[in-house]
Amino acid sequence: MNIDGIPTRTLRAHPEQRAIDIIDQARLPHALHWVRVATLDEAAHAIRAMQVRGAPLIGATAAYGLAIALGEGADDDQLQKAIAILWATRPTAVNLHWALARMSKRLSPLPATARLQAAWQEAATIAEEDIAQNLAIGQHGLGLFRQIARRQGTVLNVMTHCNAGWLATVDWGTALSPVYVSYDAGLPVHVWVSETRPRNQGLLTAWELAQHGVPHTLIADNAAGILMREGKVDAVIVGADRIAANGDVANKVGTYLKALACADNGIPFYVAAPRSTIDFDLPEGRFIDIEERHGDEFRLVHGLDARGVPSALHQLSEREAVANPAFDVTPARLVTAIITERGVCQASRDALLALYPEENRG
Amino acid sequence: MNIDGIPTRTLRAHPEQRAIDIIDQARLPHALHWVRVATLDEAAHAIRAMQVRGAPLIGATAAYGLAIALGEGADDDQLQKAIAILWATRPTAVNLHWALARMSKRLSPLPATARLQAAWQEAATIAEEDIAQNLAIGQHGLGLFRQIARRQGTVLNVMTHCNAGWLATVDWGTALSPVYVSYDAGLPVHVWVSETRPRNQGLLTAWELAQHGVPHTLIADNAAGILMREGKVDAVIVGADRIAANGDVANKVGTYLKALACADNGIPFYVAAPRSTIDFDLPEGRFIDIEERHGDEFRLVHGLDARGVPSALHQLSEREAVANPAFDVTPARLVTAIITERGVCQASRDALLALYPEENRG
Repeated sequence: MNIDGIPTRTLRAHPEQRAIDIIDQARLPHALHWVRVATLDEAAHAIRAMQVRGAPLIGATAAYGLAIALGEGADDDQLQKAIAILWATRPTAVNLHWALARMSKRLSPLPATARLQAAWQEAATIAEEDIAQNLAIGQHGLGLFRQIARRQGTVLNVMTHCNAGWLATVDWGTALSPVYVSYDAGLPVHVWVSETRPRNQGLLTAWELAQHGVPHTLIADNAAGILMREGKVDAVIVGADRIAANGDVANKVGTYLKALACADNGIPFYVAAPRSTIDFDLPEGRFIDIEERHGDEFRLVHGLDARGVPSALHQLSEREAVANPAFDVTPARLVTAIITERGVCQASRDALLALYPEENRG
Repeated sequence: MNIDGIPTRTLRAHPEQRAIDIIDQARLPHALHWVRVATLDEAAHAIRAMQVRGAPLIGATAAYGLAIALGEGADDDQLQKAIAILWATRPTAVNLHWALARMSKRLSPLPATARLQAAWQEAATIAEEDIAQNLAIGQHGLGLFRQIARRQGTVLNVMTHCNAGWLATVDWGTALSPVYVSYDAGLPVHVWVSETRPRNQGLLTAWELAQHGVPHTLIADNAAGILMREGKVDAVIVGADRIAANGDVANKVGTYLKALACADNGIPFYVAAPRSTIDFDLPEGRFIDIEERHGDEFRLVHGLDARGVPSALHQLSEREAVANPAFDVTPARLVTAIITERGVCQASRDALLALYPEENRG
């Protein structure tokens, strides 16, 4: 995709310098700032502090992080240590663990001397596959969007939650890939962008949609229900951090509420994610580890100055108890369809295995 | 209730000075600031700018606003003009229109010379009734909470949305009155307080609960669903801005999403409101006028400074389209019960009329 009209990706690899450059997404949309990641610690920090976020981008960054770590030594101890450190950065998005397991499988059998180059190559392959898979998701999603658009004949109003766009992946995005592909194909599409408290990733979505010229409107998370009841939403599409084998979906907290509102209003609820997000080893969503993040993420709020004008930041008291689960689980029964790089399927074990027969070990 | 241990109300009337004092709630919890309201324009501004908010307090403020207006002249023209100006300040909370209609009915038959004193008296009666009704709501709610607490035997976890507490009324609150009465009765109660974007009225709720010593935890609006799925919520209780004759409930945007999550998890969803919030003339919730407020309410967000530390306010571009409906409508089928000053009833036309037989005109 593009920033200010210039093609770019979210992650730029420099194997010869044993480093990558990433966008510090915690500072978007207020500032576009590239950060150099050249050590294992910096890679782990980038994931933990959400400089990179979005399940597929976390996976790709972890793969490159491992390659960077092997530059500091490539024996078995270093390999295992680096995997363990990166593995523990965040618990919910399975792409992280998927990418590290894949790297481990590729690198472990090799002699230490061959691992560094192989690691950079494998990370690059993961990144390239991410781009290709996301584009395929976009093309499958276009098919769905075309059907809805044909039925209703006016602008297609799609709602999304959090950011599962270009910024959440190496390129194209998951949930937003169908939006971009549809927009490029001339389908009149408008996106309802929910703010996504507490970290406001909706602002990232608004920013990247604006970069591509896609019409969109920012809303409070609370407004999703009334917009649906008023007939202003034709479909909801979100990404995922982990999909259990039965089709239960862990995604940014608040997703479940939108899925409930879709069901109550007869609106399709789509989940877009590549193979690496599906955890075939996990039978149901209730086993997914839900990350609890620090309450400071929303203890900091804006206040009013002496004239009552919003202009100052206030830190709520540390004594103010805050609970901050970062994800929730949407049960498969509320998911109309899952869109992967292989096609569109129901959120069920049978349908997922029909799409990925190689995972059928039973 | 109390501020820093000192008993107070949200509204202090000074008939001899033809003025009232209100708390500027737009500045809470960061600053506690009392504002003198001494003209019709100031009263209308206080309601419009949400210095006073909460359906019952809006009603009482409008009544006093009319009394203030009659100090500038009390003939029929002035009476009608003042009612029209106050009537138009906000569209959704019916208590505003209820209070003005009641004032009009009381004052219109009187000679102009008798209106000023009668207006101050009637406004005071409305305020006193509000306090008594809210306390009665609290006592009826205590009965419900006791039943739930007996069933589960540990701390009672109640979730609320927005602020329907002491600050939203003249005293006690609607949704929070059962919480205060239960707490005072020794029931171990803990409140999940949802932030309530875009205006963060959850911070008002956290503040007033803290003043009374009630344990509570602040959450993002998005977190309501997962807390319910994890069994951490025993009941949800909210106030209302308007209840249609069939039991549909207009309340702060996001209420509907919580009601859906309650229904999906078998958790009771209660609405607490006095008679003045019930609009027996309105057959269904879909006829309720939903206020659209200015997008600037959440265009202003905090950003990060050059070191990535949250510390500066950023104004999103005016070009960034924002939709900001302030309320939504929860259908009666999702409401477990309505708690009024007369008791607890189902959310249905028949049950509401059984509680208020004098409203049965058909």
